[in-house]
Amino acid sequence: MGERAQRVMTECAQIAAMSEEPERIVRRYLTPPVAAVHAYLRERMEALGMDVRVDAAGNLRGVWLPQGTAANRLILGSHIDTVPNAGKFDGVLGVVMAIEWVRIAQRLALPLPIEVIAFSEEEGVRFGVPFIGSRAVAGRFDPSLLELKDANGVPLETAIRTFGLDPARIDEAALDGTAAAFVEIHIEQGPVLEAEKLSLAVVNGIVGQSRWTIEFTGHANHAGTTPMGLRHDALAAAAEWIAEVESAARSTDGLVATVGKITVDPNAGNVIPGSVKASLDVRHLHDFVRRAAVEQLLESANAIAARRGLTLQQERQLDQSAVPMDERLTTFLADAVEAVGLPVKHMPSGAGHDAMVMAARVPTAMLFLRSPGGISHHPDETVREEDVEAALQTGGKFLARFAASIR
Amino acid sequence: MGERAQRVMTECAQIAAMSEEPERIVRRYLTPPVAAVHAYLRERMEALGMDVRVDAAGNLRGVWLPQGTAANRLILGSHIDTVPNAGKFDGVLGVVMAIEWVRIAQRLALPLPIEVIAFSEEEGVRFGVPFIGSRAVAGRFDPSLLELKDANGVPLETAIRTFGLDPARIDEAALDGTAAAFVEIHIEQGPVLEAEKLSLAVVNGIVGQSRWTIEFTGHANHAGTTPMGLRHDALAAAAEWIAEVESAARSTDGLVATVGKITVDPNAGNVIPGSVKASLDVRHLHDFVRRAAVEQLLESANAIAARRGLTLQQERQLDQSAVPMDERLTTFLADAVEAVGLPVKHMPSGAGHDAMVMAARVPTAMLFLRSPGGISHHPDETVREEDVEAALQTGGKFLARFAASIR
Repeated sequence: MGERAQRVMTECAQIAAMSEEPERIVRRYLTPPVAAVHAYLRERMEALGMDVRVDAAGNLRGVWLPQGTAANRLILGSHIDTVPNAGKFDGVLGVVMAIEWVRIAQRLALPLPIEVIAFSEEEGVRFGVPFIGSRAVAGRFDPSLLELKDANGVPLETAIRTFGLDPARIDEAALDGTAAAFVEIHIEQGPVLEAEKLSLAVVNGIVGQSRWTIEFTGHANHAGTTPMGLRHDALAAAAEWIAEVESAARSTDGLVATVGKITVDPNAGNVIPGSVKASLDVRHLHDFVRRAAVEQLLESANAIAARRGLTLQQERQLDQSAVPMDERLTTFLADAVEAVGLPVKHMPSGAGHDAMVMAARVPTAMLFLRSPGGISHHPDETVREEDVEAALQTGGKFLARFAASIR
Repeated sequence: MGERAQRVMTECAQIAAMSEEPERIVRRYLTPPVAAVHAYLRERMEALGMDVRVDAAGNLRGVWLPQGTAANRLILGSHIDTVPNAGKFDGVLGVVMAIEWVRIAQRLALPLPIEVIAFSEEEGVRFGVPFIGSRAVAGRFDPSLLELKDANGVPLETAIRTFGLDPARIDEAALDGTAAAFVEIHIEQGPVLEAEKLSLAVVNGIVGQSRWTIEFTGHANHAGTTPMGLRHDALAAAAEWIAEVESAARSTDGLVATVGKITVDPNAGNVIPGSVKASLDVRHLHDFVRRAAVEQLLESANAIAARRGLTLQQERQLDQSAVPMDERLTTFLADAVEAVGLPVKHMPSGAGHDAMVMAARVPTAMLFLRSPGGISHHPDETVREEDVEAALQTGGKFLARFAASIR
C-alpha cells in the first residue's frame, strides 16, 4: 500500500525537476519544461494502455477505454503549470493521482472509461489570465485570448504554434457529450485540515469572490504642526476600517475578508497621510452572504470617511459567483471517504481551481488533501504520504461507486 | 502702514525668483541662487547703514550698531534655503522682517545694536543634515560635517570653497559673548492660528520628538484558503495599533502622534499581510508627556502582537528633547503683542527651527505668523498682509522694550 503513495510522491518530485530555472520550480504555460512533463506523463499513461494526445490548447490528455465500455467517461485531472518559486504538489499531485486512479480502476477491472487531463495553464502567470487550459476543455475559450501577450511580447497564438500546436484547432479541445463527470484532486492550500487533524476533505463548492479598491482621501499635513483635532488622516481612517473588515469577517461563519494591499501617499514618517488606497478581498460559499458583507463594509468605509471629513472612492474589481460542486458526485466522494474509514469533512475551496471552470460544462467534484502548515505556492509546500494513501484508497471506493452508477 | 507690509511681501516674492529651477522654487545650500539672495539682502542692509559679511558657513550677517551703544546685541533672523518646490515665505519672511525691524529700530532711534542673520542652511535638503547654518553660529558645528556629500558626491568642504569661503574659518562664525538674545520670526506652518482666527502667536517652546519604527510580523497566507480564526494578519494588527496611536494622542492635551509611513509585505490583494513596518512620530512640549506616551504606545503594540500570535520589533530612531524658549524674551514678545491690541496666543512649534539650535547658545524667542490653510513647503504657501503688519507693529513694541531692558 505504501508503495503506491511513495510512487506518487516520487513522481511529483521528478516532475518538479522539470523547471525553467535550475534552483527553483517555475513552469509557465507552453514553456519547454511543460513539454518535458508531457513526455514524462505520456510514458506513464501509455504504459497503462491509455491513448494520449496534446490538444491545441496544450493540455495533455490520456484516455483509458476498457474493452466493451460505452463512451461516457469520467474525467480526472488538474494542472501542471506553476507559479514562480512553486512547490512540488500544487496541481501536479492531482495529475499524478489521476493516473494512479486509472491504475486502480484497471486493477479493479472497472468497466469505466477515464480521461486524464493535465491542464497546461491554470495559474495565469505567463499571460496574466488563469484557467486557459480548462477554458478550452470546457468549451469556454474566447478566441480573443489568442491576442494576449506574455512579458516578452509573445502573443498566445504564437506561443501555441511554437509549442507545435495549431491555434485554429482549439475548438476541438472542447468536451463532447460523452463527458460524464470531472473530479479534481488537489492540495487544500490552506490550514483547515491540518488544524482539524484530517487527511481529506470533500469540497462542497468554490467560494465566490469580491475584489474592491477603496481610497480614502484626506489632507497631507505636517506631523508636527497639525494638532490632532485639525487632521484629516487617511491612514487613521483606513486603520479604523481595516479593523471593521476583520471584525465583520470574524462574526460571519465561513466568511473571509482581507485587506492585503495598501498604498499610502506620501508615505513619509513626518507627514500625515493624505490618501490611502486599500484592497478588499471578500469570499464566501454563498453569494448572498458575500454581497451583504461587501455592502456593509462599503457603508462602513463611507461612514468613517464622512465622520472624519475625508472623501471616499470605491471601485469594484471583481464579482465572481460561487461555484457549487455537483451534489451527486460529492456524495459519491463523501461515501468513498467514509467507506475508507475516515471522517467526512465538507469544506469550500477558498481558492480558484480548474474545477471551477469545468463545473460550468460537466458535473464536477473535488477532493482536498491536507496541506502541512497550510503552505502552498512556496518551496516548502508538501503533502503527507499517509494522506496520499488515504486519497488512493478513497479513489478505489469512489471509482467503483461511480462505475456502478453509469451502467 | 500698509506700505511696509507690502514691501515685505514684495521682497519675499522677488527673492522667490532666485531659484535653481525656472518653474518652481528650490534654493539649496551654497547654490548660485543663495549668492543672488545674499547680494539682494546685502544691498538692503547696506542701505540701512549695516555692516555686512558672509561667514564661513555661508550665513549672511548684517550688523546695525547705533552710535554710542555697547556691544551687547539682539540677533534677528531665519533661513533663506528652501525645500524643493517650496513656497515664498518659509524662512525668507523671517529674514526680510528682521531687516524691517532694523528699519523700525532706526526710526524709533533705539540705542540697540542688532545683527540680522540670513542662515543659509536650515532644511537639510542638500547634505541631508539640517541647521548647518545655525549650528555654526551657535558654535555647535561638528567639523565631521565637512565630509558630508551632496547627491552629486560634492563634499560640504568643497561646496564651501566653491562658494568662495574658507571652511577652516567656520569657528569664526560662532557667536561671541556680545550676543544677548535671538528672535526668529517665522510662518506657523500649521493650521492653529487660522482655526483660531489669530494673526500671531508667541512660541513657548519647540516640541521634543520621538521617532520609532515598529514591525509586526505574522504569517503571509492565502486570502481565500485561510479562515479568519487561523490568521496572523500583520496589517490587521497594525491597524488596531494605529487606532490606539490616534486615540492616545487625542486624549492627551498638546500631544501629536502620527503613523505616516507603512510598508506591507507582500502587499498583494489576495495575500494576508505577513509583515508590516510602521513609523511612529510623537511630539510634545513636555518631554515627560512625550516619553510616557511613547512607552504606552510601545506597550500597546506589544500587547496587540502577543494577543494575535505575532512578533514585534521596535527600533528607536530619534529622541530629541523639547527646547523651551527663553521666558523673559517670550514675555517681552507677549507684552508687545498685547500692546498692539492683539490677543496673546502662546503655542509650541511642532516643527524644528534655527531657534532650536540657537537656544542652546543664547536666550531665544520666536514669533509665529498665521499660515493660511496651514500650508507650507508648497507653492500655495502664503501669508496675509494684515498679519505681516501686525508682526511689524509687534516688532516696534518689542524692540523698544528689549532696548530698555539692556540699558
